[in-house]
Amino acid sequence: MSKLFVVGIGPGNYENMTIRADNALKNAQVIVGYTVYVDLVRERYPGKEFLTTPMTREAIRCQLALDKAKEGRSVAMICSGDSGIYGMAALLYELRGENIDPEIEVIPGLTAACSGGALLGAPLTHDFAVISLSDRLTPWEKIEKRLECAAQGDLSIVLYNPRSKGRPDNLRMACDILLRYLPEDRPCGVAHSIGREGEWAEYMTLSELRTADVDMFCTVFIGNAMTKMVAGKLVTPRGYRDV
Amino acid sequence: MSKLFVVGIGPGNYENMTIRADNALKNAQVIVGYTVYVDLVRERYPGKEFLTTPMTREAIRCQLALDKAKEGRSVAMICSGDSGIYGMAALLYELRGENIDPEIEVIPGLTAACSGGALLGAPLTHDFAVISLSDRLTPWEKIEKRLECAAQGDLSIVLYNPRSKGRPDNLRMACDILLRYLPEDRPCGVAHSIGREGEWAEYMTLSELRTADVDMFCTVFIGNAMTKMVAGKLVTPRGYRDV
Repeated sequence: MSKLFVVGIGPGNYENMTIRADNALKNAQVIVGYTVYVDLVRERYPGKEFLTTPMTREAIRCQLALDKAKEGRSVAMICSGDSGIYGMAALLYELRGENIDPEIEVIPGLTAACSGGALLGAPLTHDFAVISLSDRLTPWEKIEKRLECAAQGDLSIVLYNPRSKGRPDNLRMACDILLRYLPEDRPCGVAHSIGREGEWAEYMTLSELRTADVDMFCTVFIGNAMTKMVAGKLVTPRGYRDV
Repeated sequence: MSKLFVVGIGPGNYENMTIRADNALKNAQVIVGYTVYVDLVRERYPGKEFLTTPMTREAIRCQLALDKAKEGRSVAMICSGDSGIYGMAALLYELRGENIDPEIEVIPGLTAACSGGALLGAPLTHDFAVISLSDRLTPWEKIEKRLECAAQGDLSIVLYNPRSKGRPDNLRMACDILLRYLPEDRPCGVAHSIGREGEWAEYMTLSELRTADVDMFCTVFIGNAMTKMVAGKLVTPRGYRDV
């Protein structure tokens, strides 16, 4: 049976890939992905057939990968971060349906909650929610409700897709919702281009985050009630010191 | 300045480690960790000094790592999964305080939300919450509130530490709370010993999860309102097909 690997490549640099993901790309004949992600790996895996589609063409990209695998080629579909978390694995399962050819193997990768958290310090030592602010596929009211629930539950919050050209106000609107429940001085952090050229980390309060200079390459972290700055890092304790 | 690496080794097998984590362990002189995790890596990194402490001795273990690093040794403190998410990074920052010697570098690893999700299919394609059911360091009322909030926000939910000998009823109690908001037939999955000997995946409804045979090596996934079984896998769509 032919096989399709869905590979999470992590934040983008080679060192943050898993050994399993690296092996899958080495062994693949065809590497399929969004243009920007394929460019991140292209030089390291010479001699492959690379197939790309632009952003927002997810279904076409996945069908392409399924078709190539059905032709008997060994195919790796790459996703930035994890292959499941906001990745392409679910869409591939959906498009393949109840037919189980090609076989799909999901290879996990570091999602930005892990890699961005490590860059900023240790903001996710306790329970947390991951919420995307992209309303391309999700009604804004649903996002709003999830932000409210996460704040009411005192979960640390990681915001993916906090802002883009088409959504310049989403982060400000999200902060305004959170500020109904959380204090203005709640410690927050922003991780930019994690593991890639132009990586930076910045720290601020929730009220400062409202107007922060954040773009689509940022992942935003909002602390829980215990989160504090320690030696310049965003740190959420879990109570180990009190045992 | 001396340096301490806090290394997330992922679920436990070598292939699911990142290249960066592997390099850090290769270069370290001393590897410190909870006995079970050190045993997972011991054979692969010969010639190191290994220091272990039992579970629940987190502060002692972290102080040991800090002290060794201050002596000028190159030290790697290992954590299963990610080094930040329920890991030791925050405690190391806390114990070090405002003094910045030794330098701490947090090396992320695959948390069970990523690795367990991949094993079960693609349950986390959309917003989700990660909640630990361990009430060793967290009052049960707080866990209960977080479960309620996550269910009300239609977040997919990942449960860490769903059950242990000391907490035989926590998963059943958690399901009872969730069942106040979620339907009995909500698709769920359990991932056991991900990437290790004895790995298995099982699928069930939320009402079946209530009495499922789950232990401390399990990670539990509860779908959101869109989650369904597709060809035997737990899949949460994100709406890409409707674009």
